[in-house]
This record gives sequence, C-alpha cells and structure tokens, in this order.
Amino acid sequence: MSFQLLKALPKLRGARAILTQVQRTQANPKTTTWSWRETIANQAQTQHAFSTTSASFAASWGTTKQKRNVKLRSATAEFIMSNPEIEQQLAPLRERVQEQGNLVRELKAKGAPELDVKKAVAELKARKKLLEDKELALTPSVVSFDRARMEDLLKRRFFYDQSFAIYGGITGQYDFGPMGCALKSNILTLWRQFFSLEEQMLEVDCSMLTPEPVLKASGHVERFADLMVKDVKTGECFRLDHLIKQALEKLSKAKDATPALQAECEDIIIKLDGLNKQELADVLAKYSIKSPLTGNELTEPIEFNLMFATQIGPTGLVKGFLRPETAQGIFVNFKRLLEFNQGRLPFAVAQIGNSFRNEISPRSGLIRVREFTMAEIEHFCDPALKDHPKFANVASEQLTLYSACNQMDGKSAQQATIGDAVANKLVANETLGYYMARIQQFLHAIGIKPECLRFRQHMGNEMAHYACDCWDAEILTSYGWVECVGCADRSAYDLSQHSAATGVRLVAEKRLPAPKTVEVSEIVPNKQTLGKTFKKDAKAITEALSKLSLDDIKQVETRLAAGEQYKLTLSDGASHELGADTIAVKHATKTVHVEEFIPSVVEPSFGIGRIMYALLEHSFQCRDGDEQRCYFTLPPLVAPLKCSILPLSNNAEFQPYTQKLSAALTKAELSHKVDDSSGSIGRRYARTDEIAIPYGITVDFDTLKEPHTVTLRDRNTMKQVRVALEGVVGVVKDLATARLSWAQVLEQYPAFEQQETTK
Amino acid sequence: MSFQLLKALPKLRGARAILTQVQRTQANPKTTTWSWRETIANQAQTQHAFSTTSASFAASWGTTKQKRNVKLRSATAEFIMSNPEIEQQLAPLRERVQEQGNLVRELKAKGAPELDVKKAVAELKARKKLLEDKELALTPSVVSFDRARMEDLLKRRFFYDQSFAIYGGITGQYDFGPMGCALKSNILTLWRQFFSLEEQMLEVDCSMLTPEPVLKASGHVERFADLMVKDVKTGECFRLDHLIKQALEKLSKAKDATPALQAECEDIIIKLDGLNKQELADVLAKYSIKSPLTGNELTEPIEFNLMFATQIGPTGLVKGFLRPETAQGIFVNFKRLLEFNQGRLPFAVAQIGNSFRNEISPRSGLIRVREFTMAEIEHFCDPALKDHPKFANVASEQLTLYSACNQMDGKSAQQATIGDAVANKLVANETLGYYMARIQQFLHAIGIKPECLRFRQHMGNEMAHYACDCWDAEILTSYGWVECVGCADRSAYDLSQHSAATGVRLVAEKRLPAPKTVEVSEIVPNKQTLGKTFKKDAKAITEALSKLSLDDIKQVETRLAAGEQYKLTLSDGASHELGADTIAVKHATKTVHVEEFIPSVVEPSFGIGRIMYALLEHSFQCRDGDEQRCYFTLPPLVAPLKCSILPLSNNAEFQPYTQKLSAALTKAELSHKVDDSSGSIGRRYARTDEIAIPYGITVDFDTLKEPHTVTLRDRNTMKQVRVALEGVVGVVKDLATARLSWAQVLEQYPAFEQQETTK
Repeated sequence: MSFQLLKALPKLRGARAILTQVQRTQANPKTTTWSWRETIANQAQTQHAFSTTSASFAASWGTTKQKRNVKLRSATAEFIMSNPEIEQQLAPLRERVQEQGNLVRELKAKGAPELDVKKAVAELKARKKLLEDKELALTPSVVSFDRARMEDLLKRRFFYDQSFAIYGGITGQYDFGPMGCALKSNILTLWRQFFSLEEQMLEVDCSMLTPEPVLKASGHVERFADLMVKDVKTGECFRLDHLIKQALEKLSKAKDATPALQAECEDIIIKLDGLNKQELADVLAKYSIKSPLTGNELTEPIEFNLMFATQIGPTGLVKGFLRPETAQGIFVNFKRLLEFNQGRLPFAVAQIGNSFRNEISPRSGLIRVREFTMAEIEHFCDPALKDHPKFANVASEQLTLYSACNQMDGKSAQQATIGDAVANKLVANETLGYYMARIQQFLHAIGIKPECLRFRQHMGNEMAHYACDCWDAEILTSYGWVECVGCADRSAYDLSQHSAATGVRLVAEKRLPAPKTVEVSEIVPNKQTLGKTFKKDAKAITEALSKLSLDDIKQVETRLAAGEQYKLTLSDGASHELGADTIAVKHATKTVHVEEFIPSVVEPSFGIGRIMYALLEHSFQCRDGDEQRCYFTLPPLVAPLKCSILPLSNNAEFQPYTQKLSAALTKAELSHKVDDSSGSIGRRYARTDEIAIPYGITVDFDTLKEPHTVTLRDRNTMKQVRVALEGVVGVVKDLATARLSWAQVLEQYPAFEQQETTK
Repeated sequence: MSFQLLKALPKLRGARAILTQVQRTQANPKTTTWSWRETIANQAQTQHAFSTTSASFAASWGTTKQKRNVKLRSATAEFIMSNPEIEQQLAPLRERVQEQGNLVRELKAKGAPELDVKKAVAELKARKKLLEDKELALTPSVVSFDRARMEDLLKRRFFYDQSFAIYGGITGQYDFGPMGCALKSNILTLWRQFFSLEEQMLEVDCSMLTPEPVLKASGHVERFADLMVKDVKTGECFRLDHLIKQALEKLSKAKDATPALQAECEDIIIKLDGLNKQELADVLAKYSIKSPLTGNELTEPIEFNLMFATQIGPTGLVKGFLRPETAQGIFVNFKRLLEFNQGRLPFAVAQIGNSFRNEISPRSGLIRVREFTMAEIEHFCDPALKDHPKFANVASEQLTLYSACNQMDGKSAQQATIGDAVANKLVANETLGYYMARIQQFLHAIGIKPECLRFRQHMGNEMAHYACDCWDAEILTSYGWVECVGCADRSAYDLSQHSAATGVRLVAEKRLPAPKTVEVSEIVPNKQTLGKTFKKDAKAITEALSKLSLDDIKQVETRLAAGEQYKLTLSDGASHELGADTIAVKHATKTVHVEEFIPSVVEPSFGIGRIMYALLEHSFQCRDGDEQRCYFTLPPLVAPLKCSILPLSNNAEFQPYTQKLSAALTKAELSHKVDDSSGSIGRRYARTDEIAIPYGITVDFDTLKEPHTVTLRDRNTMKQVRVALEGVVGVVKDLATARLSWAQVLEQYPAFEQQETTK
C-alpha cells in the first residue's frame, strides 16, 4: 500500500496477494449472499467477473456502464467456529499452514540460510492464501455492493475524478471536487482534534522536495523500487509480477493446456510474491513471455525506483525527489523538536501532507495512486519506557486482532481487549497498543463499520528489519482487506540512520537514578612535537584522534606501552605513525548525572485517500425498492455539507426565509447548500442525499405563518419533524457536532407529515 | 514574487525594484526615527547596512549574531501634504514622472512601435523610483524593527527554519515547526471561514504533478523563465539581473571610477528592469563582467524555466511539472464545477495547496521560496455582469489605493471607499472591488496593521496581456512593500487557452431575454458519391467539413454557385477538391433560447507564507526597557496556542488542578501548553510570550482554597485578573474566538496583584 510500503518494502507483495485473492473470489458468482442492512442492493443484477488489469481499469474508471456487483465477505472467527461443517472443511488447510509455519520457525531457529527461509516463507504464504480463499468462499458475504453505481455517483457529483481529464487524464492522479475536498478536509479536522489536540502533539509542516542524501540515508534511494520490463520496440512498461500473472493465467486457460501445465502455472502464480529478480527472469524466459500488446520481445527485469526525481536549483547538480512519505521530515527535525519540548521525552509529532510515488501501473481508484495525502505521527520515547500514561483509558477497547501467530498457524482473527493483548505480550507495548486503540476509535468515529476493521500483525518475514512490532489497520472493501493505517514500532532505526549520515547526534538524555562515576580515557596530543613532525597534517591528526573509540584508545595505550608506534588512518585514506613523543593516553574519572540514548519511535501512519474510499464504500446505500436513488450515510461530523435549505417552490415569499436561514447557518459555521432550483421537493431531496447532506430544512407555506416553523428532515431515515424557525439552526448545529442524535430530535419535536397551508 | 508572477511575468522586475529601493534607504543611517508604539525597540543599537545578496543571506539566516536594525517607513499622502517643505522638494521629481507618464500615454495612443513604448516605460519606472526613494527618505520611519532579533526568536522557538539543516540545508525551502504550523493552519482555517464558507465557494483539491500540455496551454512552459548565466568552468549559476547590478555597483565604487562611469553604472542599474535579453548581454560584454566567485568567463544569458520538471510513469516519456500555481487545476475542472453548480453563474471556486518554483537564487526568507502554500479563488462570471450582489455590504470600506494613474503621475497612494472607487471606474467592476474589500477585511482580522497595507494597481505595461484590471494587496515589511495577495480580473484568457488546446468547449450558457431566430448553415455531404470518390478518406473529409466555420461555409457556397470546386485541407495536410456532386450547403432557421459564452474570471490569489511573514513582523515586540524579552502580539484567533497553564511551582498539590484544566481546555478544543518545568513564573511567562500564547492560567496556593480560583494573564498588557476555576475555560474560549475582549474581562473580574496564601 501507498504509505506503509515505504517503510516495509517486503510487504509490497503481500498486499497484492490479498487483492488477487479477492478478485478471484469475486469472479465466482455462485456464492450465496445475504444482506447487511435491510436494503438489499441489486440482488437481481447479473454479476460480472471484475477485471482489474491496470489499463482496462484506468480507462474505464467510473465511465463503464457495465454493471459490476462485488460481494464483500467478513470471515469472522465467531461465524466459522459456530459452524462445525465449515470448520471441518477448513481443518486440513489449517493444518497445512501450521505445518509450514512450524517449518519456518524451525529454519529460523537453527539459523538456516536466508534463501531456504525465504522459500519456506513463500510456501507458507501460498498455503495461507489457499486457506483464506476457502474461508471467504464458505462465509456469507457481508453486503452486496454495486461498485459501478457508486463510482458513477462519485464521478457525476464530482466527489473526485481523474485529474486533467480534458487533456486525456493521467492514471493514478485524482482531483477532489467540492464534496470530496470537504469530506477530506472534515476527516483531517477531526484527525487533528482526535490526535494532535488531544495528545498535545507537535504538528509540523515540512518540505516535499527532498534532497537525495536524506533519502539515501532512509534507504529509499536504494530499496524503494518495483521490478518492471519494457517492450524492446515501443518502450511500453509492464510491472513484472502483473505481467507474469496475466501471461500464465492466459496460458493455463488455453485449450491445449495440459493439466500438468495448468498446475505448474497455478503454482507459480501462488508463489509469485516470494520470487526474486532472477527467479522472475527465469519464469519470463521459460514461458517465452512477450509484450501482451505487441508480441514484441521484452527487456530483462529492471528495478524501477518509485520516487519522482527532479533537480533543485538551476545548476542541475542537486538531485532531489518528491518525498515518498512525510516521516523523514520529522526525523531530520528531531533535534529542534526535542528542544522545543524542553528536552523531555516522550513526545509525539504529527504531520499531514502529500507524498508521491511513481507507480508503474496505478489502479484500484484511490487505493493505489501517484499523489496522496498522509497523516503521520512519530511518537518518540525512551526504548526502556514504552508504557503509556493514558493506556488505562483505552485498555477495555475490543479489537479484532489477526496476529502473526494466527496467520502462521492457519487460525482466524480473534477478538481481544487491547489491555489483554498487551498483558499477554501479543502487542509489544502499551504505547503501540494505545495508538492501535485510538486508531480504531478514530475510524469508528468517522463512520468505518466496526465489523469491517481488523488489525493484522506483520509476520516476522514481512516486517521491515528495524521494526519490533507492526500492526496494520485493514479495512474490508470491495477490493478486499486494504491496509489503511500502519502502526509500527520502528525502534531507533531512522534516527540512527540520519545520525550516521550527518554526524549530528540525534539523541535524548535522561537523568540517571543515581550519579555514576565513569572512567574517561582520552588521547592527549603533544601539540608542539605533533606540529613540528606533521606540519599541515597536524590539525587533521588531532581531529582524527578525538574521534577514536574507547577500543581504539585501548589499542593506542597497548602500543605505546610496548614502545611501538600507533598507525592512525585519516578519513582521506592517508595514514601516519604516532609514538609516545607525540601522544599520550590520559585517564580520569568523571561523575555523570545523565545518560544519552537514541529514542525509539512508534509510528501510526494514515493513508487518508484509502480511508476516504473505504468510508464511501461503507456508507453507500440505495433506497429500498428504488436502486436509482443512491446516497451516502456519512456521519454528520464528516459529511461535506451539514444541511440543505430547500424552499418548497420558487414562490418569491420564501426567499427572505431562505436567505435568513443561510446567513444564520453561515454565522454558526455550518456548511450548507441552498437548492432553490426548479424540480419537485422529492427530487431535490434525492439530489442532496447523493452528496451526503445529513439534514434538510424545507421552507413551505406554513413557514410564512406565525409562529414561523420549518421542516427538518433526516437523510438516513427520511423522517421529518417540525421545528421553530429561530431554533432550527441550533438544532442542526447540535446534530452536526454530535451533541444531539436524531433519535433525540424525534422525541423532542413533532413529526411532520404534511404542511397545513397550501396555496 | 512567488505566486502573482506566475500570471504577470512582466511584473517580476517591478517587485525587485521596490526591494532594491528599500535596501538603499536602509543603508542610510541618518534619517530620524519615531516609534509606532510606546515600545521603542533598540533605538540605541548601532545600525548596519543590510546586505541581501542571496548567498550571504541564505547562509546567515537566523544565525548571524550581528545586530541589524531595519527602519520601516510609511509614506502616506496625508503626511507629505501636511509638510509643505517636503512637498516642495518632491515637486520637481513628481513633474518628471508625470512628463514621462504623458509621453508613454501619447506613444500608446498613436500606436508607436512596441520597443519605443518599452523604452519609455523603463524611463518612467526609473523616474518613479527616484521619486519614491526621495519620499521614503523624507518621511519618518514608522517603526524601528530588529529583524535579526526576530529571526533568532523564530529559529530558536522553531516557528520555521531551513529544511534539511542537518544535511546542510537547501535554500528556499523551509520547514514549519509546531508554532509556525499551527499559525499557518489557523490562518487557513480563518481563510476558509472568511471566504469559502461565507461565500459558499466550491473548494477543490487538485493534483500538484501536472502534465506538460496543460502548462503549455497556460503559457508557463514557454514564458515562465528568468535569465541566468553560468560560470563556464564551474557551472555555478547567477541570476543575470542580480549579477549585473552587483558588478556595476562594485565598479562604480572602485577608487578609480570616474564620475562619468559612476553615472553610467547608476543609469543602467536603474533601467535594469526594462532591459531585454540582448541588451543585458550587451551590458555583460561592455563591462567584461566575469563570475564574481572565480573570475571565470560566463556563458551567454540563458532562459531558465522556473518549473520543477519530472517524469510521470515509468516510460520516461510523459513529461510533467510541479504546478507553479494552483489555479490551473481549477480551470481544467471548469466543466465539472459548472455542472456541480447546476450550470449557473456566477460561482467561485477555492483551492488551498502547495505550488513550486525553482528559483535561481531564493532569498528574503519566506518571501522568495521554492515551495509555498497558496490560497486561490477563481470567481467565474458573465463578462457582461460583473456586479456583485453583496457589494453594498462592503461599499463603505476605506482602502489605500495606489492607482496606475497616480503611479504614472508621480502622485502618492490615496484613501477612498471601495464604493467610490468602483463608481469612479478606478476599480474596474464590483466583483473585483468586492474581493479587494474582503481581502483587506481578512488581512485586518488576522492582525496585519492597517497603516501597512495598500492596494497597488498594475500599470498597463506590467499587467499580463489578458488581464483587464489587477490590484495587488501589498504589505509593508522590512523588505519594503511586498505583494501578498493579487486580485486580478483575468477575463476569459485561461478558459479560452484550455478550450483551444483540448477542443473541449469550456463555456457557460445564459438564457436570452427573448428567444432569437438564427440562420444555421451547414454542409451536407452526399455520402454515396463522397464514399465512391474518396474511399477511405471519405470519413476524414466528412469530419473536416463539419468543423468548417461560417466564413468557410460561405466560401464553399460561392464556389459551388460558380460551378467551381472547393479545396478542403485536412488536418494531416492532404487536400481534396470537392464539387456540387459531393457536397451541398443547406440553410435553416432555428429558434435559440440560450447563448453560449466563455466566462470571465476574477482571481484573488493569496501567498500564505508571505502573509505569515508580514504578520510576524507586524506583531513582533520587545518589552519596555527589556529588549531581551521579545514576544508576538498575534491575535488570539490566529495565535498558535490559545492558552498556557502554569503551576506556580512544582508542588504536587497543584497537579490535579493543572490536569483538570488541561482536560477541560482540550474538551473545549482550545490548543494549549502546560509548562510545569522549573523556573520562576516570570521566566515561564516570558517563554510563553515568545510563542505568542495570548492568555496564561496560573495555579497557585489560592487555587487550593475554596472557592477555587486561578489567575488569568493577558500577554499584551501583562495584566492579570482572578477568575473562578470552573469559569476560566469559558472565558478563554470566548477570548480565543473573539467573542470577548480583554478590556471586557478587566471590567468583569477583579484585578490580581498578589496571591493571599503562600506556603
């Protein structure tokens, strides 16, 4: 996924595996479905296999009129366990996963060669995938969801759409229209309140253009790449794993395909994620795979770095990249931030901003894009003190945890309180656990369905080598489980890397429980003889001496004691022989009150576009019996606009009321829309439902009479009440800020059926 | 300047001229000064000439301990007019400007060659500059401002600082630390309320990475460039105008410089902004100007495009740029936005986002940077209807207007209500005037000093060729008058350009007052004979025929009537002869109810970084008699944090109160800081003053007693009152949201001098 990947590159392939699996399940139209809500959307519609090859998807985004129903399934442990027949069918698959899991553990334990471990892990993943496929096939779908219909609505009402469409468009780039922009902005506002304000985080706003050395230190220049091949004649590029999968699928579906060939192809496809560059090249050669578009030869696999490169300044000599994540901006400012926090730990830094990633073939709408908004938190703490003072507040929060162990053993995700998970050492520490619980609370608050959220732990082999523990908040969408928030304990990796690259000590200090006496050894040069002997080199020598480690100093001491010379090598490679005439080793004791250490970092990292997309899917609905009338049940807190004002007709008498209401809503800082266009009130309600406006005020003939009243309508229930004109803005304000529920409104105000006055 | 320039490239040089003039004035330490507030900052300090050559400035940003006092002057017409002696000294200079202004008008009127006009304009600008220099020299300075001290504070408390500093830093890029980020975020929140919400604008969020064709159509690929030269050996780049100015200044200051040479140099420096590429190359050659760093030869002047280039996608074939302004994203989405607005005009679209500009030599801190945040509005309207329904609300707003006429005639800026300015046709239309007034109200609301704000109209020659009228909101800072908001009537330019480039009609429709009968002419091909005659070309011919203009059709008709053939040229260059056997011209009448037109655009464009910088300068203060105690008087609405909580000491009994207050402030969505570090209360107040926290709550021994009370302190006045513990959060909320003033608090609550209880 777009943001987490940046840190844990090996995960890349894993995410794709999930996508594949879901597509395969989607292509099977025989599974039974039941509905999540009363509204059964389009049960009668024909289902089509959903093709997500990048080209066809990019071209058809939102435009295809073809109907595509996608079934969502949620394989909860409870459901499966309560169905013994299902469990029976799954049992042999579980066993095979567990067997392989044990083998992996064993190989790791005895320090087997890396290649052997990798192969065993690839097989483990393949078995896991078979199990998950089966699980999904056997469990009922959560909801039948018409993605094409939703995409049409999103495009038609310009929530978002492809950028530069009048110029032919660019895949993987989207413009957010008024409703998408407002939704995003509301999610970010809530995020700020929920995290920055609540935890008194330090929020920063760093540069996107990043010079090369920074991203060399972070590892992105070397490792942030995908494999691709090019058509030797046209130069067309293909992502290697996509290409092989497509080619082998075609091969095994060919009429003359033998069962042996089919099995072979399927085996490779399943293991694809675990193959390295050479192995993939071998597959390419073995099956003589050519360009699917032209039939031309293809180049050898090339590593394509996913960062956008540019030059900073006019010389063309300063190479820079658009940042692939916002986190590095925080790490390079660590010293300033620690100082701002008066040298104290722990503290957390937040940043909201755009990152960029030059995908070879972007697809899946907002889920895999080239430019995206992230919200990242870096929580710096003492590695020895990862408790969290507010952990008790969240300890009883129930999470669906899909642990690495369960994944290895072929088990399902399980429910647990975060308190228990940390107590049982399933989640590494309180700080990590605290953020996981807060992430869940936030996602629930904006409207993500609790039953479609799980936390999946990274397995040892997919975790970046520096991370101690990592859990992804995954949200179930029609694309399968999608990583939307990563939550990782990154240990001291990043600060160490930047310290090493710059020589700037990115460390914190802590007071020792008691002062400590330490022995200090240093080399004291005899400046006079040193200067005489080495002339202009003397300065460089003195500097190099001051940088020697304690071990080096011991060696110097040994040499000098033995009457020998010590050979000192300078950073430019030159070396000099130094004897007792020029240097001496001095010992002293010193009382120290503080100790330096490199802080650990716990990092929750949110992909805002992905969360938004999942939220739109979760809130997409069609009215009972009228599938043309679609709407979004977005919670008022994040809904783009809070309220509509609809005069019943274009009667001029309504206008002063409409204007007065609009002014009052503006004063109350409530975004709203006046729809005084022609069209029946019902049609206009439907139009406001489409853009997720939760409440509607209607001005009608009763409004003109004293006491002036208006109708207030709820989008989700379509119920209406009658409210006094002067009170309605206050009611909407309370509803929009979640201080009042619609159920309470129904209790307090008379239901509205029909206006008394008509003209 | 960073954002307006992008539209009105010729202005570039003008902005620089102002900068130069202020520097020159600053270098003259003899002018008398008086203070703006009671606080007279550092009058006793020695003043140093302030060097802003890019290298030295970038290197010294915030780090130099050298004292630099900069004097700000505000040359108001009132002041000058009330001092006859001053006016007397200025009179001859005014006359010379006016004389030249008349010449320019005359040349334009008689359609003189462009080169002659340009030369006359360059001379006009030179005379204007002499006048303004003199004006500034003769008027008293508004305030004595210590920029170095402010920069030190901004850096020390990490409002913002150079990006990637631990890697040596990149000039022209800044990271905003917690206080800068919060200030920026608060300004943007207020901006959204003030503009988007108030006017029900459509806010969008478009891609930054922009493919080349879009920026070709907008003119940026061709024209968005600065001239530079390179050291032929080292490749070091210099902005040509900067380099020449520096070289000539050095030349004229040399000991052997004759008065004639000095006059020559000064003349060129003054006219520099008006010289074209060849003329600048000639100057370079005439004075044998070499690289100032190495003495090496320099290349010929090169046009350097200021956009950052990159490749989108893996092929390396799709060239893209980082957007140089956010506006284009709005224009390319015009059709979708018009549709969202149900086809109605006028409507306004807003966008907040980052833009990028690869400056040759960035300088002046936040004022000229490579990555910056803009907030832009595109107000689309019928070119024939530029009235604004809410204009009456702002008509009486007083603005300082520096009209093109006044600039041409050598007069000063003048005060006028925007109502009068529009009525007198000084400002082109109500919509433009409405936004100017709103821009001023916004800038006042965030804390820009009214006396340091003026609107300067672009002169005919500096206005982009498509703009009808353009006024810049300029703010007086220690760098001189800086353009911070541009407000331009861009007519139909942008939509026309993108229509032409894409063939997509970016137009709106309006209902005609009465239906109109129009004659429609079209060419009807005889499909059968056309197909027989032209075979595979028939389709292309039919298509080309359908695109002929009315004039073309008339020509076809004439030809056919004369029994001749019509020669049709296809887009691929091929041409075909068509006669009456293959085509005919058909006439019909049609009743039309609507008319299509390309909307006009009025564009207010805000440079957020510049506004922030100006605001920081305007709010920077030092305490009377203690210049070490500096603070910012930022209004509570935009202050990064709203409140501090300071326990009097680290007595454990205070802690529950501190925690309770912090929780209550969080619940009230008030950003705050608890400072329970050691240090006297006075020192901690000073520390919170430095980061502009407007209010401070102190918990002391009286707090422990019933009824529980705390001290509430105001940053600006340092006055304190005693407030009940449970009421204080409400008071701070009202203060922070400007519903209550400190003066009112002083009336309502008892002043606090000293706590009763001590321990």
